[in-house]
Amino acid sequence: MGKRLVVIGGDAAGGSAASQAKKRQEDLDVVLFERGRATSYSACGIPYWISGAVEDESALIARTPDEHRKAGIDVRMRTEVTGIDLDGRRVHWRDLDGGTEGTEPFDELVYATGSVPMRPPVPGIDATGVYGVQVLDDGRALRAELDRGDVRRVVVVGGGYIGLEIAEACRVRGLDVTVVDLAATPVGTFDPDVGQFLADAVRREGIQLVLADGVAAIDVDADGRARAVVTASGRELPADLVVLGLGVRPNVGLAKEAGIPLGTSGGIAVDARMRTQADGVWAAGDCVESLHRLSGQRVVVALGTHANKQGRVAGINIGGGYATFPGVIGTAITKVCDLEAARTGLSTAEAELAGYSFVTAVVDSSTKAGYFPGAQPIRLKMIAERRSGRLLGAQIVGKEDAAKRIDALAICIWNEMGVDEILSLDLSYAPPFSPVWDPVLIAARKAFEAVEDDVRQL
Amino acid sequence: MGKRLVVIGGDAAGGSAASQAKKRQEDLDVVLFERGRATSYSACGIPYWISGAVEDESALIARTPDEHRKAGIDVRMRTEVTGIDLDGRRVHWRDLDGGTEGTEPFDELVYATGSVPMRPPVPGIDATGVYGVQVLDDGRALRAELDRGDVRRVVVVGGGYIGLEIAEACRVRGLDVTVVDLAATPVGTFDPDVGQFLADAVRREGIQLVLADGVAAIDVDADGRARAVVTASGRELPADLVVLGLGVRPNVGLAKEAGIPLGTSGGIAVDARMRTQADGVWAAGDCVESLHRLSGQRVVVALGTHANKQGRVAGINIGGGYATFPGVIGTAITKVCDLEAARTGLSTAEAELAGYSFVTAVVDSSTKAGYFPGAQPIRLKMIAERRSGRLLGAQIVGKEDAAKRIDALAICIWNEMGVDEILSLDLSYAPPFSPVWDPVLIAARKAFEAVEDDVRQL
Repeated sequence: MGKRLVVIGGDAAGGSAASQAKKRQEDLDVVLFERGRATSYSACGIPYWISGAVEDESALIARTPDEHRKAGIDVRMRTEVTGIDLDGRRVHWRDLDGGTEGTEPFDELVYATGSVPMRPPVPGIDATGVYGVQVLDDGRALRAELDRGDVRRVVVVGGGYIGLEIAEACRVRGLDVTVVDLAATPVGTFDPDVGQFLADAVRREGIQLVLADGVAAIDVDADGRARAVVTASGRELPADLVVLGLGVRPNVGLAKEAGIPLGTSGGIAVDARMRTQADGVWAAGDCVESLHRLSGQRVVVALGTHANKQGRVAGINIGGGYATFPGVIGTAITKVCDLEAARTGLSTAEAELAGYSFVTAVVDSSTKAGYFPGAQPIRLKMIAERRSGRLLGAQIVGKEDAAKRIDALAICIWNEMGVDEILSLDLSYAPPFSPVWDPVLIAARKAFEAVEDDVRQL
Repeated sequence: MGKRLVVIGGDAAGGSAASQAKKRQEDLDVVLFERGRATSYSACGIPYWISGAVEDESALIARTPDEHRKAGIDVRMRTEVTGIDLDGRRVHWRDLDGGTEGTEPFDELVYATGSVPMRPPVPGIDATGVYGVQVLDDGRALRAELDRGDVRRVVVVGGGYIGLEIAEACRVRGLDVTVVDLAATPVGTFDPDVGQFLADAVRREGIQLVLADGVAAIDVDADGRARAVVTASGRELPADLVVLGLGVRPNVGLAKEAGIPLGTSGGIAVDARMRTQADGVWAAGDCVESLHRLSGQRVVVALGTHANKQGRVAGINIGGGYATFPGVIGTAITKVCDLEAARTGLSTAEAELAGYSFVTAVVDSSTKAGYFPGAQPIRLKMIAERRSGRLLGAQIVGKEDAAKRIDALAICIWNEMGVDEILSLDLSYAPPFSPVWDPVLIAARKAFEAVEDDVRQL
């Protein structure tokens, strides 16, 4: 009998791990447990499916259960793993539809349970009409409700990436949308000056922002249905529908019960090859913590791109190969209406928390040569370490063609480049693509001047 | 009396050098000689002015003579420097309109004469109706002729960046356009497989391509006007207008006469601070040679972005500061109709010439998540060194939002990254911006597999 790999969770991380391991080691028995109705889907695509930009739910699915089965993986859909017995080398499972229970033995285990959405512990949070947008089934329920046509006013709780993307989706559908967030500017991982640019643009799109305010309660009508969000400051925001977009935390309940050690951040602790500290147990995706290469701390970052990479790394190692996941630097990107925003590295708040001292530079430029038709505004902020001039972080907001430029800066940060070297980079130039001094180069020049000015005063 | 800086050439490099030097050292006398009618203009913008995408010629001018004068620079327009007397520390000049001649003393000199367009030595090349597109005055003459409305058929000689951009401009104006080029695919600095993708797209736009064929003669009518281009293979291509887009060579005549040493490439030899080997003489822009950081050779690359940077570096050093130009890696980008193309590092032919042994990987992906509206095709090719896996070159062709991604790869190459590390990079992901595996990461993964396969066979 061949060795048996059990994978808990069939989305990006689990699906990738299962595929890679099976591909590399054909005689491996791979059993994949997924409690939902889909495998390997794009959770990040849910807002665009809700808005109607993506027509068909199936478009979001990268690999169906049957495609996994064709690759030789034994997929158990709608089957929840309810316990892990590390000493007994088996998992306990329950079929969510039929109610059957059972156990499955394993030699190696991949823990890829993802994350669970944050729910504020306020009255009314469990009322009808309050939706999360975590898994595909959430999206399906939310879209069905919107399709019924009774909803006019939507309140989104949380003004981060997901919150704003959902707000846009509802706005595209012609609804009245209000976003509530605790922070003074939306997407708190951006610096306030960049966040303000975002806030202005979001409001211009007709989305109401209630900032620096929390949710105290959700008012419920006689039928048990949400009818308003009451904020901490006492405002009452009428709502036919409430969407929670407060972010997520790693889904580590099973791991804790089984004795798979967590890290300081609350995610599963893993090494560079995605091994946990439990023998023969691997973990990947939203439930694990990763090295942040700038702060040096271990952090949980729930993002499909990391989940895919980590799952691949785990699968390669399980299949007898060698691969490592070298960590993250906090790159993220979003589009809200026609505004694009992206960040990489540390924000000023994060840099302070990490113990860095730094200077900043902000430039307003254009995405094409200023004289070229269709040139759009782009604002670029750089955060550079004092003395060394090492780039610690960058943020971009702008219109069409602005934000994806963050990748260039992410690679500068990854390579620990100083802003003086960045301003000499051989970046592409032609009038349809950038001014002759690319915004990245202008920002680096300005940041370098700030570093020099600061050094003179040291 | 303060020290005197003479700058020969008032475009990107000369203008930047003059500005920076004056800014840093206020008591410096700066005299800027420009033989044309404009300073600091975007030569790269000429095709878009010809097409009409850019309405006004003045939009192409970053800094007018009067703006330079306001900064304290003594600008002499339409004044050609005819000789450099290094021992006598003076230049000879001639006013091209009035005919006056004179000399100007200098303590420091910046040689920024740019480049001269290649003209094939064939019969008829100097006929009426044969245009270059090198300086703003060329563009003005060409546009005036097109505006008269007598031109229907245009033949563009040379299928490089400028040739194709001019071809597009004429096509946009509704003209019949044929491009002739010696190479088998257009833009010879791309690999043939990428060039073929370009050729197909250009033809779909209704531009005729005559490839693997040269120009033998230009047929001239009784009035001395070009009426057809005759190719080496004997084809006769009727033309009301002929545009030369054959590239340029460094304008080094004056330097040679004066004894300012050239490098092996034929450009002016300069050090990292843009000093020539003649005492007190600096050079910058299209006329100098630069270090190619991959081949290790010194090369001439005529590009506005380098000219600006080099001029800035020379000016800072002249003004008492310290700056260096660390070289180039061959990044270039272009847009032809709705097709975008870009490259960085070495092509396969260049890599071979430089002595590298390598593997390649090509991926076809999309600019957004495949399911996202407006996702466009993108083809990405990577060239990686054998064994080390170091990225040596990359090429991109695709539609909207494809080509500017080359900057990410340029920075990978700049930092001498291997494709195995590239595939782990924390690049930005959201469905409107890329698939969950960014095309850059997919290509790196495929290139890494090619490196590994190759190592197994070594």
